Amino acid sequence: MPPPSRHNGPVPRSNERSPDRSTTAGADFLQLDPREAPAGGLADWLARRLRQAIADGRLPAGSRLPATRLLAADLRVSRGVVTDAYRRLAEEGRIAGRGRGGTVVVDPFPRPSAPQPPAVPAPTRVPASAAASPPGSPFDGPLVPAGFDTLRNAPARIDLSPGAPDLAAFPRTAWLRAERAVLHDLAARDFGYGDPRGTPALRRAVADWLGRNRGIRADPEDVLVVAGAAQALALAGEVLRTVGLDVVAAEDPGSLGTRQHLGHRITATPPVPVDAEGIRVDALRATGARAVLLTPAHQFPTGVVLAGARRRELLRWAAEGGLVIEDDYDAEHRYDRPPVPALRGVLPEQVLYLGSVSKLLAPALRTGWMLAPARYRDLLVDAKRLSDLGNPALPQLVLARLMDSGALERHLRLLRPRHRRRRDAMTAAVAAHLPGAVVHGAAAGLHLTVTFPDGPGRTDTELAAAALARGVKVQPLSWHARLPHPPGLVLGYAAVAPGEIEEGVAVLGRLLREAGRPLPG
Amino acid sequence: MPPPSRHNGPVPRSNERSPDRSTTAGADFLQLDPREAPAGGLADWLARRLRQAIADGRLPAGSRLPATRLLAADLRVSRGVVTDAYRRLAEEGRIAGRGRGGTVVVDPFPRPSAPQPPAVPAPTRVPASAAASPPGSPFDGPLVPAGFDTLRNAPARIDLSPGAPDLAAFPRTAWLRAERAVLHDLAARDFGYGDPRGTPALRRAVADWLGRNRGIRADPEDVLVVAGAAQALALAGEVLRTVGLDVVAAEDPGSLGTRQHLGHRITATPPVPVDAEGIRVDALRATGARAVLLTPAHQFPTGVVLAGARRRELLRWAAEGGLVIEDDYDAEHRYDRPPVPALRGVLPEQVLYLGSVSKLLAPALRTGWMLAPARYRDLLVDAKRLSDLGNPALPQLVLARLMDSGALERHLRLLRPRHRRRRDAMTAAVAAHLPGAVVHGAAAGLHLTVTFPDGPGRTDTELAAAALARGVKVQPLSWHARLPHPPGLVLGYAAVAPGEIEEGVAVLGRLLREAGRPLPG
Repeated sequence: MPPPSRHNGPVPRSNERSPDRSTTAGADFLQLDPREAPAGGLADWLARRLRQAIADGRLPAGSRLPATRLLAADLRVSRGVVTDAYRRLAEEGRIAGRGRGGTVVVDPFPRPSAPQPPAVPAPTRVPASAAASPPGSPFDGPLVPAGFDTLRNAPARIDLSPGAPDLAAFPRTAWLRAERAVLHDLAARDFGYGDPRGTPALRRAVADWLGRNRGIRADPEDVLVVAGAAQALALAGEVLRTVGLDVVAAEDPGSLGTRQHLGHRITATPPVPVDAEGIRVDALRATGARAVLLTPAHQFPTGVVLAGARRRELLRWAAEGGLVIEDDYDAEHRYDRPPVPALRGVLPEQVLYLGSVSKLLAPALRTGWMLAPARYRDLLVDAKRLSDLGNPALPQLVLARLMDSGALERHLRLLRPRHRRRRDAMTAAVAAHLPGAVVHGAAAGLHLTVTFPDGPGRTDTELAAAALARGVKVQPLSWHARLPHPPGLVLGYAAVAPGEIEEGVAVLGRLLREAGRPLPG
Repeated sequence: MPPPSRHNGPVPRSNERSPDRSTTAGADFLQLDPREAPAGGLADWLARRLRQAIADGRLPAGSRLPATRLLAADLRVSRGVVTDAYRRLAEEGRIAGRGRGGTVVVDPFPRPSAPQPPAVPAPTRVPASAAASPPGSPFDGPLVPAGFDTLRNAPARIDLSPGAPDLAAFPRTAWLRAERAVLHDLAARDFGYGDPRGTPALRRAVADWLGRNRGIRADPEDVLVVAGAAQALALAGEVLRTVGLDVVAAEDPGSLGTRQHLGHRITATPPVPVDAEGIRVDALRATGARAVLLTPAHQFPTGVVLAGARRRELLRWAAEGGLVIEDDYDAEHRYDRPPVPALRGVLPEQVLYLGSVSKLLAPALRTGWMLAPARYRDLLVDAKRLSDLGNPALPQLVLARLMDSGALERHLRLLRPRHRRRRDAMTAAVAAHLPGAVVHGAAAGLHLTVTFPDGPGRTDTELAAAALARGVKVQPLSWHARLPHPPGLVLGYAAVAPGEIEEGVAVLGRLLREAGRPLPG
């Protein structure tokens, strides 16, 4: 390599023109450069360029053209040139004035301008034998991460998918008020690049929240704000693979989505059975894994709370060097039992804790947090920095205000009786329409699980596909289980009105009866 | 593995209590469970639990206690129990009433409750020989991604780091107005999990924007919304590694940050020199790399526009099978030259295009977009899904409104003369205070680069460290170059007021003179 030259280095003098303002005419709009135009033919040239852009799709129907005054100024031409070009296209039927809406491109063959809502299948009675999954059904093929998108996009009248709180209760007014205060108070530099760990205000608010509500003493410096539990698991997987912890055991049954997010970065997620006391720590030891992914406060999907003796056994395993990834996903939602403090509060150096606002406020906020053992902290911050440089600032600051002002606690107090009524509607509907089913995990959370000890007359995946064909969305327990298990369904109720819960479960009941298998009761 | 048992499967009946309401007393606050209290000793018990939480840090000074009425209701105890416990702690000096602020924890040894701002070093005159980097200086050690954070966190009076537009001009009012409209119009389900590719509204708005302003015909279905160019590059790196394209050439000089984000997922980013016409395509061919990372509209940091002949040569290379990653980072900011359409508009199946609002509005929004060749699209969506399930919905919808309504174009029209005045202040200050320096890339963008053909009397990294010691933040050209190059500095001006630009460059001039090297002029 040649020695660095100080006098003749390769940093170029750029090929830019001298800053003579006469050379700067040109519009960002269609990258128009009037120097291309033949002498005296400016309006011709402009009309031709506009026609091209309409024809090749750069200006689709509905696009707004710039005001003639502004475009003329950009191009350094007289306004008459632009109005002349626009007039010609208007006469050709390609554009039209829309009053205050400006001048817009017109579609010569009008089609509905908004995308059509997907057709909802009529709730016809499908024979059980015809209930196979339609093409592109979420219940066909292997369980890939896109399966959740396919299910979400499938049309349905009633959506009993688990995972969301009552979204109609989202505190829109409080959010907007907090956003106004944030925008008012923000310094200009806060709109720049920020700390990849999150804004100081939210990290402090989260530390306080975890101290008050989850039994966790956290230094705000140690809080890492992330894009929901999904990103927390992706970052954890990346870091654990880096340090050689690339086998992480997972509860079974256990959340498929969670396992996908962690699992795609590591080598294996061996299943560990869950019983009525929670995860079987003896079976965890038998896997040889040095880390485990857990939902101790309300196991997904069974709803089991990790029992005292099992909790002590697990903490012993962790104290001997095991790492617990504690997914505290809906700990704040409980109806019939006292609150359960987080494991992180007991053994912080052996617990990688993650939480989010997806179940407190809304999944669409994509906001969560992690608290890691000190030895993983810098690696996680590096992983977050290299993923996206940190969460967006405005929603973080709005959320910090809602946490600091007590508005989030008030929201929880509002949600709890609403969710409880929906839970009650769900358990009543299950008792009425699914007489042979056993209900699991109804004391807390946003969903419950039903199993069919006598069988639903088909696999639970077939049952879910048949329900979808009748407009009711549910998840089969099979999605979340790898070990042998009875057929079952995971039924979300928190985001659904009681009447729809009743109607959706009634559809499930009819499907079971049609399967020709009389159920007890 | 035993066959699945339908009658005796391992899905547990959870250990929850029956939904008898009498067993559900308990507060999320400190996970208080009154069943722990000895008979008749409820207030004692509650006071003890509160003292513990204050002592062990779960309730730090300033924490707010729940209203007595609410806590009593949660615990199913009389309100007198709670007021009695609160009274005792107040008498002990641990808590205090704050009127409408509620009851808060008091720090017995008052310290300032807000973190102190970092001390700004006095602008004392440091001898050039003492200008070595202070401990923890961003200019010590290897160029790691955390270096940008260290520089950002370093205290300085004047920040000439490149990368941000005029942040004081952020359209706060328009943003809040659009947010109000979004919150008003949103359906409840839009607060749930969404399409990992982004909201349909933003993808349509981005496609329209790219058609109007960047010469790109895009189907909204093909737009992938991401968390800024940083995430776009991380996702691209992941996918390219998957398909075996794990060597991606990069311009030199070229953005260090960009190279870090792409590079940490792939094997190598061989440097390709940039000259006055842009990237040297002959040198690109010589690397053997089948992909290249480019900034064709305004090369970072030299500001060169890819010249016509070079552009054709590059497109030939791409048409033969090369992949161009086009980072269109500040194409909309131009002062003295006509706009340059994106390469993506010419050869869509060989160009992976990325853009963001970091330079249009604010980096803190962490919002950008990608347009990929069809063969990489599903892989990129999978990578985005597994990273974070998609960008947060609210800021996407607000941005879509600003794009659709023309507010973003108006904002650009407002920014351009402001930025031009700052650019003029910067070039004037450089002419006045850095007489030997050569200016590159001043016709467009948010920064310019100066090089010192006669040498600054020290390395540019030493110069940047000395400037930081005097309260002026700049980036050395060395950060962005791996091939031999003259010493230089990258100077951002768009986010700095003209008076500070003048003052900051004057400090650089004094440092150069103190280096004892008389410069020409």
